[in-house]
This record gives sequence, C-alpha cells and structure tokens, in this order.
Amino acid sequence: MDTARNAETGHQKLDWARAHMPVHAALRERFRDQRPFAGLTIAVCSHIEAKTGVFLETLAAAGAEVVFTGSEPGSSQDDVVAALNEQAGVTGYARRGVSEGRLAELHAQALEHEPDLILDDAAELTARLAHLRPDLLEGLHGVCEQTTTGVQRIRAMVADGALRFPAYAVNQTPMKHEFDNIHGTGESALTNLMLTTNLLLAGKQVVVCGYGDCGVGIAHKARAWGAQVTVTEVEPRRALRAHMNGLAVRPMAEAAEIGDLFITATGNRQVIRAEHMERMRDGAVLANAGHFNVEIDAEGLAALAAHRREARDGVEAFQLPDGREIYLLCEGRLVNLAAPTAMGHPAEVMDQTFAMQFMAARHLLAHREALAAGVHVVPDTVDEEVASLKLETLGIAIDALTEGQQRFLDAWRTDDLLHGA
Amino acid sequence: MDTARNAETGHQKLDWARAHMPVHAALRERFRDQRPFAGLTIAVCSHIEAKTGVFLETLAAAGAEVVFTGSEPGSSQDDVVAALNEQAGVTGYARRGVSEGRLAELHAQALEHEPDLILDDAAELTARLAHLRPDLLEGLHGVCEQTTTGVQRIRAMVADGALRFPAYAVNQTPMKHEFDNIHGTGESALTNLMLTTNLLLAGKQVVVCGYGDCGVGIAHKARAWGAQVTVTEVEPRRALRAHMNGLAVRPMAEAAEIGDLFITATGNRQVIRAEHMERMRDGAVLANAGHFNVEIDAEGLAALAAHRREARDGVEAFQLPDGREIYLLCEGRLVNLAAPTAMGHPAEVMDQTFAMQFMAARHLLAHREALAAGVHVVPDTVDEEVASLKLETLGIAIDALTEGQQRFLDAWRTDDLLHGA
Amino acid sequence: MDTARNAETGHQKLDWARAHMPVHAALRERFRDQRPFAGLTIAVCSHIEAKTGVFLETLAAAGAEVVFTGSEPGSSQDDVVAALNEQAGVTGYARRGVSEGRLAELHAQALEHEPDLILDDAAELTARLAHLRPDLLEGLHGVCEQTTTGVQRIRAMVADGALRFPAYAVNQTPMKHEFDNIHGTGESALTNLMLTTNLLLAGKQVVVCGYGDCGVGIAHKARAWGAQVTVTEVEPRRALRAHMNGLAVRPMAEAAEIGDLFITATGNRQVIRAEHMERMRDGAVLANAGHFNVEIDAEGLAALAAHRREARDGVEAFQLPDGREIYLLCEGRLVNLAAPTAMGHPAEVMDQTFAMQFMAARHLLAHREALAAGVHVVPDTVDEEVASLKLETLGIAIDALTEGQQRFLDAWRTDDLLHGA
Amino acid sequence: MDTARNAETGHQKLDWARAHMPVHAALRERFRDQRPFAGLTIAVCSHIEAKTGVFLETLAAAGAEVVFTGSEPGSSQDDVVAALNEQAGVTGYARRGVSEGRLAELHAQALEHEPDLILDDAAELTARLAHLRPDLLEGLHGVCEQTTTGVQRIRAMVADGALRFPAYAVNQTPMKHEFDNIHGTGESALTNLMLTTNLLLAGKQVVVCGYGDCGVGIAHKARAWGAQVTVTEVEPRRALRAHMNGLAVRPMAEAAEIGDLFITATGNRQVIRAEHMERMRDGAVLANAGHFNVEIDAEGLAALAAHRREARDGVEAFQLPDGREIYLLCEGRLVNLAAPTAMGHPAEVMDQTFAMQFMAARHLLAHREALAAGVHVVPDTVDEEVASLKLETLGIAIDALTEGQQRFLDAWRTDDLLHGA
Repeated sequence: MDTARNAETGHQKLDWARAHMPVHAALRERFRDQRPFAGLTIAVCSHIEAKTGVFLETLAAAGAEVVFTGSEPGSSQDDVVAALNEQAGVTGYARRGVSEGRLAELHAQALEHEPDLILDDAAELTARLAHLRPDLLEGLHGVCEQTTTGVQRIRAMVADGALRFPAYAVNQTPMKHEFDNIHGTGESALTNLMLTTNLLLAGKQVVVCGYGDCGVGIAHKARAWGAQVTVTEVEPRRALRAHMNGLAVRPMAEAAEIGDLFITATGNRQVIRAEHMERMRDGAVLANAGHFNVEIDAEGLAALAAHRREARDGVEAFQLPDGREIYLLCEGRLVNLAAPTAMGHPAEVMDQTFAMQFMAARHLLAHREALAAGVHVVPDTVDEEVASLKLETLGIAIDALTEGQQRFLDAWRTDDLLHGA
Repeated sequence: MDTARNAETGHQKLDWARAHMPVHAALRERFRDQRPFAGLTIAVCSHIEAKTGVFLETLAAAGAEVVFTGSEPGSSQDDVVAALNEQAGVTGYARRGVSEGRLAELHAQALEHEPDLILDDAAELTARLAHLRPDLLEGLHGVCEQTTTGVQRIRAMVADGALRFPAYAVNQTPMKHEFDNIHGTGESALTNLMLTTNLLLAGKQVVVCGYGDCGVGIAHKARAWGAQVTVTEVEPRRALRAHMNGLAVRPMAEAAEIGDLFITATGNRQVIRAEHMERMRDGAVLANAGHFNVEIDAEGLAALAAHRREARDGVEAFQLPDGREIYLLCEGRLVNLAAPTAMGHPAEVMDQTFAMQFMAARHLLAHREALAAGVHVVPDTVDEEVASLKLETLGIAIDALTEGQQRFLDAWRTDDLLHGA
Repeated sequence: MDTARNAETGHQKLDWARAHMPVHAALRERFRDQRPFAGLTIAVCSHIEAKTGVFLETLAAAGAEVVFTGSEPGSSQDDVVAALNEQAGVTGYARRGVSEGRLAELHAQALEHEPDLILDDAAELTARLAHLRPDLLEGLHGVCEQTTTGVQRIRAMVADGALRFPAYAVNQTPMKHEFDNIHGTGESALTNLMLTTNLLLAGKQVVVCGYGDCGVGIAHKARAWGAQVTVTEVEPRRALRAHMNGLAVRPMAEAAEIGDLFITATGNRQVIRAEHMERMRDGAVLANAGHFNVEIDAEGLAALAAHRREARDGVEAFQLPDGREIYLLCEGRLVNLAAPTAMGHPAEVMDQTFAMQFMAARHLLAHREALAAGVHVVPDTVDEEVASLKLETLGIAIDALTEGQQRFLDAWRTDDLLHGA
Repeated sequence: MDTARNAETGHQKLDWARAHMPVHAALRERFRDQRPFAGLTIAVCSHIEAKTGVFLETLAAAGAEVVFTGSEPGSSQDDVVAALNEQAGVTGYARRGVSEGRLAELHAQALEHEPDLILDDAAELTARLAHLRPDLLEGLHGVCEQTTTGVQRIRAMVADGALRFPAYAVNQTPMKHEFDNIHGTGESALTNLMLTTNLLLAGKQVVVCGYGDCGVGIAHKARAWGAQVTVTEVEPRRALRAHMNGLAVRPMAEAAEIGDLFITATGNRQVIRAEHMERMRDGAVLANAGHFNVEIDAEGLAALAAHRREARDGVEAFQLPDGREIYLLCEGRLVNLAAPTAMGHPAEVMDQTFAMQFMAARHLLAHREALAAGVHVVPDTVDEEVASLKLETLGIAIDALTEGQQRFLDAWRTDDLLHGA
C-alpha cells in the first residue's frame, strides 16, 4: 500500500476542506493561545474524511491530545487518515470498507488512549466503551453527541442505568440539527441518489419515511425540484406538520404502491419491509439516509427475490418472481456516505456541526463539576456563540435591542406596553 | 342600534365557522356528556369573532360558564357578540372600535364574574387582573395563553413576582405556533396587505422584521409568490436560519433603503423608527402583523411628515418634506385583523389553536394541585392528542411502531441495533 | 344618485392607481408632445375601474379621443366611471351590476362614436361590432386584444370569415401573459378566494382546471403556500408540463372526489359539471378565474340541489339531497373581479398589460397598411420596448452584448466559435 | 486496450438506460414492423453515452442504417461506444478526451457514410459538413437539431446562405426545451457542481448568467434549495421575467462582486471575463452549463493568476496576485458532462428529447418535398404525439373536449358563448 501517495491526496483534501471551513479558522485563531483542551485526551468517533480532519486539527490546535476512529464501516477515507496521522497531536485508527468486527477492534485501539472526553457520532464509541471497557467509565468527563440516532441511543443507556457521566445532546441544538440535518443531509442524500442512478427528480413520486429534521430536508428539497412527495410517520404531530406543509401523508403500506423513489430517515429499523416491497412498482429505488443500515430490510428483499445482480455501481437489482425489479442503493447504507459519488456532508455544514461539538466540549469541561450524569441540553448561549461566529465569517451584521426595546420585553402592564415603561 | 339584525348576521358567521372547525365538532361530541368544565367560570379574552364564538360554544358544551371579552380595540365584531350573548352559558363584553379606556372597562366587567380560569390572548386579561383586581389572584386556578407576546409578558410578570398561579404557554406547543403563527398569520397578513393596497407581491422587495414563527410564515410565503425578501433580526440564530433558508439578512438601517413593503412581526416596539423611515423609497408601505400597534413608530412618522391624508380605505399617506410618500396600513394595527378586508385567521387555524387552548385548560385543571406558580410547557401528550384528533377529521391514517421498532428505540448496544434486540 | 360623491372616491382611486403605474407615467411623458393618436377615436372595452382609468387618461394624453365601455356585467365601478367622464378627451358607458341586455346597450352606445380602433377585453366589443354594427367594419383600422379568451374568439371569427381588419394578439406577448395571467390572475384569484371564504390554503387539496398561463399561476402559487394541487387538462403537453413540475394530473372525474377547492381557468365552458359535483366532498368550494361565468355549470348545480342559501357574502351553499353542501363563489363569475373583496388585478400588472395595449395600438396604426386582415403576433420589438421601459422604472440595469458576442451569434463554423470570428 | 471489457460495462450501462427510457420502448414496439427509416442512413452527432445508445438502437430498430459520432471532446464514453459498435445497424466514431483536431477527424469519418439525414447536437456535424464536405449538401434530406446553441448556429448558416436543406428546430419544441433544458440541465448542472466541490447550496450567493430555459432551470432550482440567486441578462424581457419571478437582476460587473458560485448558460462567449474575475470574492467558483467552453474566459483567468494548481479532481485553483483564489470547474466545459461525477442528463429527460428527435426525423422525411430550405418549427402535432406517448408510459389519463366544448371554442358571438352554440 502506498501510504505516502495516500497522504498526499489526503493533504489536498484537507486543504480544500480547510479553505471552506471558516468557523474553524476562527476557532483556531481564538483558542491557539488559550489552549482550553491542554492536558486532555479527546477521542473523536466520526466519518474520518477531510472535514472531520479539519475538526481534529482544530482540537489539537486548542491543546488537546486527539485520538480518532471511524463511526461506520464504509465512510472513512484512507488517504485522509494517513495525512492526519502525520500531524502532531493527532493519532487515529480508521480504514475504509472494514467489517463490523474490525470496526470494533479499531474502536478498542482508540479506547486504549483512555480518553477524558468523547465526541461521538451515533454514540458508537460511547456504547463501545460502556460495553467493552466499563473500567474507563470512571475517568470519563463526558460525551458530546452529534446525531439524532446517538442521542436516542444515549437516552436508552440512561434508561438502562448505563450512563455515569454527563452527555451533551449537541444534535438537539438548532445550530446543528437545522443545518446539518435539514440542509446537509437533505442536499447530499438527494444529489448522491440522483447521480448514482442518473435519474431525474422532476415528476417523480418520492416517498420519505420519517419527517424528523433529515426527513424534512429531503422531503422539501425533493418537492422543490418537482417531485410529488409522500411522507410516512408514526408520530401524529410530525404527520400533521407534513400535511400542513403541503405533503401527502400515508401509511407505509399505501405509500409502497405509489413511490418511484423511497428514502428512509427515521432512525429506526425495518421501516421498509418485505410486506411493502411486494407491493412496489417495477423499478422502485430504495435508499437510506439514516445512520444504521437497518431501516430497509435488505435481507427481506433478498429473500423475496428470484435473482439479484449489480445493475450499476452502487445499485443492486433484485428481481421478484413476477419479473418486477427493485433497486437497492449501497446495500441500504447511508446514501450520502456510501454512494460511489459520496463525500459526506458539504464542508460548510460540517464547519458548523463540528464547531458546535468544539464549543459544547469546551462548555462541558468548564462545567463538568456542576453537571449530573445524564443527557443535557447544550445551553443557548453556546448555540448563539456559534451562530454569531458563523454570521461574522459570512460578513452579516444584525441589529441589537435598543434600551427601550429591552425594557418593553421586561414590562407587562398594558400602559407600559402601549406608552413606554 | 339594531341588535336583532346584528345577531342574525352573527349567527350566519357562526354557522360558517362551525362548518369549518371539525376539531371543535369532535370536542363537543366527546365532552358533551363528560362535562369536564362543569361548575367552573372560564373567562376568554380574544378577538371576538365567529371562530372564537365556536370555541366559546364548545367550552359551554363541555360544562363551563363562559364569560368573554375582546383582546384588542378594533378586532371584535358586534354581530357575533350579539349572537353569542343569545346563547346559554355564554356572556360577554366586547365591541368593535373602542378606545383603550373603554377596553379596560370591558375587561373589568368580565372580571366581575370572578373567573376560575383565564384563556388569554396577549395576556391582556391576565395583566389586567393582576393590575386592577389583585383580590382575584387567590381564587384563580390558572391561565392558558395563546400568543408569543402573551407568553413573553407572563414571563415578565414572573420576573416581577406578579404571578401566583400556573400558566400554560399554549403558544409554545408545536400544534399551535407552527400552524397559527406560520400558516395563519403568514397567509392572512399577506392576503390582507395585498387586497388593502391592490398591489402585487411578485417582483417586490419585502422586508420582514423578526424571524420568529410569524416572521417565518410571512417571509417564506412572500418569497414563494415572487418577492425578494430581506429579514431583520436581533437574535443571531434566527438571523443565520434566515440566511441558510435563502433570505437576505440585513440591519434595519440598510433594509430601510431597499424595501417596497415592510411587515413587522417581532413582538417588540419601535422596530421601524423615524431614522429608518427617513431612508425609505417613495411609496414604501408599512404594515404590522404583531399583537400591539407599537412595532411601527406611527407618531415618529407623523412628526416627520409635512402632510398626511387617507390614500384609500385602510391606508394613510404621509408625505415627507421632500415629496416622498410613505403609506401606513391600519394605523399600525394587526393588518390581518384591522384591514378593511380582514377576518382574522382562517377557520381551520383557529380550530386547532382553540382546540389546544381547550385541551390545555382541561389538563391544567386536572393537574392544578401539582403545578407550581409560573410558566409551564404544555405536556407533549396534550399536543399529540390534538394532532391525532385533527388527523382524524382529515381522514389521514399513519403508521404505528412495531414491537421490534419499539425495542430498537430502547436498545443501545451495537449488536442489538444491527442484529435485533 | 350622488354622482359628485361618486366622482370624488373615483378620483381617490385614480390617484392611487396612477401612483402605482410608473410605466404609464413614462408613456405620458414620452408621448405628450408627439401625440401619436391625434385625430383618432379609440374605443376601450374593459373592466372600468381605476387602473383602466389611468390607461384611458394616458391614451387621451397621447392625443386620442377615448370612448370606453365595460367588458363584463359586474366588474365596472360607478365612482371611477363618474370620475373618468369628468376628464377631457374621455367619454364612456359603463355601470356596475348590469344585465346582459343592458351591457349590450352600453356597447352599442360606445359604438355610436364610430371608433377607428378597438382595444378589447375578451373580444366583447369586437364581436358586438361584427354582429350588430357590420357597417362599421369598413372604417375600423384594427383591434388589439388582451385576453386568452378574446384571442381565441377572434380566431373563431377569422375561421368564420367575420374578420376584415388586422387584430394584434396582445395577450400572446410574453410581457402580457406571463405577468398578467401568471402573476396577476394567480395572486388575485387566490387572495380573493381566501378572504371571501376565510379559509386556509395550507393543507388543502386544490384542483386547478386548465394549465394555461392563468392555471399555471394559480396552481404554483397555491402549492407554494402549502396546498396539494391536482391539475386537469385536455392538452397532453400541458398535462405533461404540470406533471414534470411536480403537480398531480388527473381526469376531472377523479379530481372531483379529491378536491377541497376547485378553480377553473380554461377559457371553455361546462368544465365542472353536475356529474362531477355529485362526486364531491361535503364542503367543496367552487370558484372561477376564467373570463366567462360558464366554466362551472351553475344551473346543473342548482338542479342537483335540494336547497340553496347564501352562506356568506359572495358564497352560495347548495345542499345535495344526501346533506352534502357545495359552495359556489360569486355565481361562478371571475372571483378576482366579482368577490366582495375584489379589486381586479394588482396595479403593477395592469400598468404593464395596458402599456402593451398602448404600444401595440401605436404599432398597429403605424403599420396598418402593411397588415393583412387576420390575427397577428405583436412584433418582439414592441414587447422588448415595454420590458425596457418597465426595467427603467424599476431602476434595473442589464448588460449589453459586446461586439465579440454579437459576432459569435452570427458565426457557425467550429473554429470561429471556439477561437473567435 | 481491453475492448471486450469495455463493451461489457457499456452493455450494463445500456441495460440501465433502456430500463429507464420507456418512451423509446414504446417507439421500438410501434415502429419495429413499420420501419419508417428503412433504406436511409441517419447520422447522429451527440454525447455518445448510454442514453444516446438507446436512441441509436431505436433508430436502427425502425429500419435506419445508423452512424454516430461525438459532439464534444470530453463527453463520450468508450465502453458505450464499444458496446454500440457490436450492434447490428449501428456504426460509429467517438472517443473520450480527444483534441479538437481529432474530433474533426471523427466527424469526417462519420460523414464518409454519406448520411441522408443528420440528427445533430449544437449543429456540430451540420457545420462540419457544410464546411468540409459541401459535396454532400445536395444529397442531404435535412437536419434535426436538439440544442439552443445549434438552432442559433443554423440560423447563422441561413443568414450566411450556407443552408440548402430543411432543418427542424427540435430544441424549440416545448416537449424538448422545457424538460431537457429546464429540468435536465437544471438538475444535472447543480448536482454535479455540488458533488464536484462538496459545497452546500443553502445560504450561497449564486449568479446565473443567462435566463433562457437552462438558466431558468438552474436559477429556480438553486433558489429552491436555499440559495440567493442573481441573474445577468442582455435581453430585457428575460431580465424582467427573472425580476417578476423574485430573482435579483444585475449587470455582470455588479454580480461579480456578490457571487459565491457562478454558472453560465447563455450560449454565447466571454460572458465572465477578466474584468469580472478581478472583482470576485476569494473562493469564487466558476462553472459552465452551456454547450461550448467559451462562456468563461479561462485564458483571461490564467493571465490574471500568479499561480494555478489542481485543487481537487475537476477543480483548478487560480491564485490572483493579492492572494484571492478563484476556482474553475472542468476547464469551463459543460459541468454536467465533464465533471468527475458526470453522467449527462438523467435518463427520463433524454428519453423525451431523443423521442422528439425520432418523431421530428420521421415527420421531416415524410414531408421533405414540401419543406423549403431553412429553419422550421416542428409542428405541434408531433410535439403532442410525444407528450401523449410519455403520459401513457406514466399511466396518466387526461380529459377530452366534449362536443359542446369544441363548439364553444369555435363560437364568437356573445349569445352563443353564454348560452350555447
């Protein structure tokens, strides 16, 4: 294997990402001397590609000893891993296209570094630590988690009594989930789906399973390009929201008969099952935009099929006994990370998401004495600080409250409101 | 005055509203025998027109002794008031086009009934009670408040030590603010603005002051019809959200120079001031969609102007000394309630908003022993129940979690997630 | 009748319209001295309200002797008619709420003036002249027609051998139909529909009959505010266009079962018939946005109904024997002209449409010798001139072709294209 | 070179395309026995990839002797060329990544077959024939041209006296340009731009040069995903259309200072010049969606730059002396064909575009005696037939005119219109 050559393209990718992550440039500038993470080992578990690399560099620039590992079998890039391992203060264990077993070993290697803090994706490393290295639980200051799936999983750990440290639900901050989930997942899931299949969105029947932030992004961006969109949901408020926003809402069994393209974004499993596939049109395309590759029942599909073949790079065709073909993308893995054209989220999105992780980590460490074990909301002030930084890098100025306006917000008597306090 | 004639058109309006508020029909059906409000006096302060009337009827059908009063000087309709006063279990005090002083008297009359519960709009009656009838504070079980402005005002009362009972922030529930504020205010502010001026949205420069839920609705619906939209904000996260959603974000001083139409929706005061009006284009149109008529500084505009005249019904023209004219709509009052064409929010929106008030009231009363004085979030279960009711009236079915999916949500170990718990 | 009072409000309306029709101001400025219409009698048939009034003034300012009459029984405004009749060079015959017979008489009065040119709406006056005053055909220089319906009708006259003069299809110019039909009809049909019913667009099933320019405007603006839209069509290309733009396309018989709101914009008759009404949901709302009140079969609906009543101003309820109610707006007349809140198209739209009529009239007169009898396309140069005028009034500058770019457009050999001619 | 291996992946690609081009399946079915092209040699010049391949097969199935060649140096795929050359009735000359000189040779080879008809892209082969093989002009029955650029170029040939045969402007048919240009170019230009740069559309300032059909598609789809869009134009009507549709319109010199991403779609040259590049922001991205790589002045950019380097696959960075970097995509070639992720237009789009070419070719041949030399509009009936075929493959039914409706369209007298003919 040619590591040097690898590192070279890795550095090119890092250069590009760095040039498009201005909030991280601002963070490095601001914290280079202050070094808030000095003396701490921070483990980062994520898709190890260029944007994550810039985040790792920035943590190191702020004083951390950084150890990294991949959060998903297929989403890390070897050239970026090689380039990162050449940097001071950064060490890691990740590889593209590993088995589940090998992924567990890479995680174990990262845990050897006995991290003080974990910055996690889908709670992969946190769950691994709780399961395999309970001895490390004592020393851990906390966890910051960046995905919907991970926060849900940490809540399950709390319910199970398995969490003994504070966890910041970074995904729940508006500055993360509105941009990363709605815009980042929305854009990248659709563009990768379209270029992997060479199909058109305009005029298609698109079924979006799940109307959380990721589903919202996918559904509205698909409609905005001329698709007719049907949403499936299990939560009545989300269903009603979709309806009021002009989308069709149907149970999965009905939606199955209508869709040309199906995209799952529920954070759950077996959302599209054999019973649904049996009802689908010839040529239906199935793709997943949720963290785990369990939202579409690929085994169920295989069991239904009389034949299967590679239809094109990233697309497997399953032929049902009656001749209909159903196409599964990327074996049901995250289409924006596993597709042949995939590069994960756009750079500006990860600039903001990782900035939230950075600032949440800093806040957690500064307040760790006061934080009980359990899942915590990141304070609004942290969120606002990231928003302000981002606006600054965009050159956008906003207004400030006048004194009279501040007094108005503090008043409640009718006279004071109408005639000034 | 011809009250009988009044009552007749009032009944026609109530009939129309009733036919378009199916959630209230479902509530009457469900609670007619159960009578959860039996023995209680409920005071409702709101814009007293047909949709509010259906809400009042429904409270009475569920056993309440209902007393009503208007929340705003210009937004109640005499014929509906007359028709309501003919109904059993409903009494009230409201009139169109009253002075501030007269509005205070009408509120005082309503308070004579010594309500057990207040269902409020902009905290008008709650503030009045705390200010003028502190003797009634003791007996009050609580308040449910349906507007952004009102919740903010009740929080100011809490900070001021003036709140001695629990208050449910009904506005904060997704089922209220997403529909009422985004869709209800969004649609009705724009349609009334357009028909009052006979102007076109397409091709206009629209400035929306405030990107809360009302501002979001107005901004996106204006853009969707071909306007170029600029947002002004004081909160960095809202500003960034607007930017990422494709809107221009500018300080008010810059926006003032660009806009053809200005719409305020901040819940604050003096958002558009003389210093901004001086910079505006000839023909700029100013309208307000927030609760109080203090968002646009109408006095400041009058002071700037060399002449003023009625330009058309609902539109006053202020001519600056250099000849430019600025048009103020409805004296800066809520354009969707005070415009010549205004009928308040669409019926389906109020069906949902008032259903939230109804169910929140029921929940507050059932749990009042457990609720401390202060502002409370309405539990998600109440919100979900209203959403389910509404979906039912729409004939929309959704999926339920399977047992395996529920187990998945409770699991956290990697193996359990990938291979089933 | 108080004509003076009438004229006063008419003048106020004209003032407002004049202030919002800057292209007409530019035309008056440009042609005041030149007087291209000097010595000619121009008959204008249209909805006689304030915007039309500004057009008439402008024709008079350019030298014409102007005679006007109404194009539709319910769309003229008496106060504006009175104010116009006070102006020099303008005389006319129009009245609000006349019978069909009376409308014919008013047309006959206008024809007494023996016009040299007709500027028409729906070909009303042209058809009347050909039918009733064939003696005037000889002297007529030509016709400019501004509606889809009118152009179609003039083509029918051609096919019937009834046209002996040139007719400019002003409606066919992009500067007319894209703005007047898409934006003008689109916005005004929907806002009037919504304020007449006090209903919400968001979440509604809207059926748009006809996907010509008016239908396109209505359909896309309805969807943009959260409606699910179904289109019905008889032309395959329009149907496919709607499909590719993300709208559902269905035959009327199917659409009838789905819709909450139905809007016709076909320029044909009996588009919604009793056979469709029988299949509709309880509460379905029917409105028309096409010129004639024959698109919805109101007589068929009346024949189906067991009872009918006024449900609210502008809305008649027809109760079917099984209890379902169907609501018909404005007796099936143009909802943006006949609704209680109606003021016709927005001012900026008519500024452009009438400017097209003005410039087309000027061009037709200048070239009348060269133009054969029949329907003619208005030359692109006329269209471009109006567009340039409008851009100027908006303060918008655009680029000009460089010399090299002009050469490129004239070249065709590969070498010249790739390396410069 | 491994032709066999090549042909294998070529066949896989053809299989995928065939499965997603149902209109072509219908054409093969319909014309297999009829063989309308029997005895004729048809030369097709286009991007030779899988969708084009299915078109070629279909021509052959309808009896033609097909010869093909590439229309652009970088857009043909060797594996598809190999697979096509294995098919009966199809022979061709195309190769990926050839020089301009080599492309001319390939064209010459195709012309050796002395075609009876040319189906062209950007008029490449037509211009070549007129320029290099005028001897063949005599025998040529005609040309069908599918691009805006090509139609403009053929008009230049007419003006230059170089055209001696009829040419069908297939691009001008609604069924081609609305779908291929608006949806096909719109989607594929943006998705390829985004995946080549790994950037986000939401929140970007996008400048679209040219508001023809391609520009319309790009501009509206960019805005629909959260970009702020500025349009530059040289034609006042297009500029005004953009303005009324809610887009900013500016001269290029101003737009240059604002844009984050620039996309050219004008069909002209030197649209973005050094004088504009000098004013751009650091990090500006330039991409082209027009046929020729001359819209962006790449040489001018190189002359400005102090350094240049490959920033990532498909992206070259030009560093100005003051340190700003400007990124040029794919050397200014068509981004949806030359990008690393590019696969040209989506399959459904080419299904329709090539079906238009097929049906236009058939019509031209059937009527060639009656058609004068020059550019002709394809009759609406051809367009409608393709639309009907496409609707059929989609399973969409539409209404038919009733007899009464047909009579209405033929009537013009008021009485007949209002009361039936």
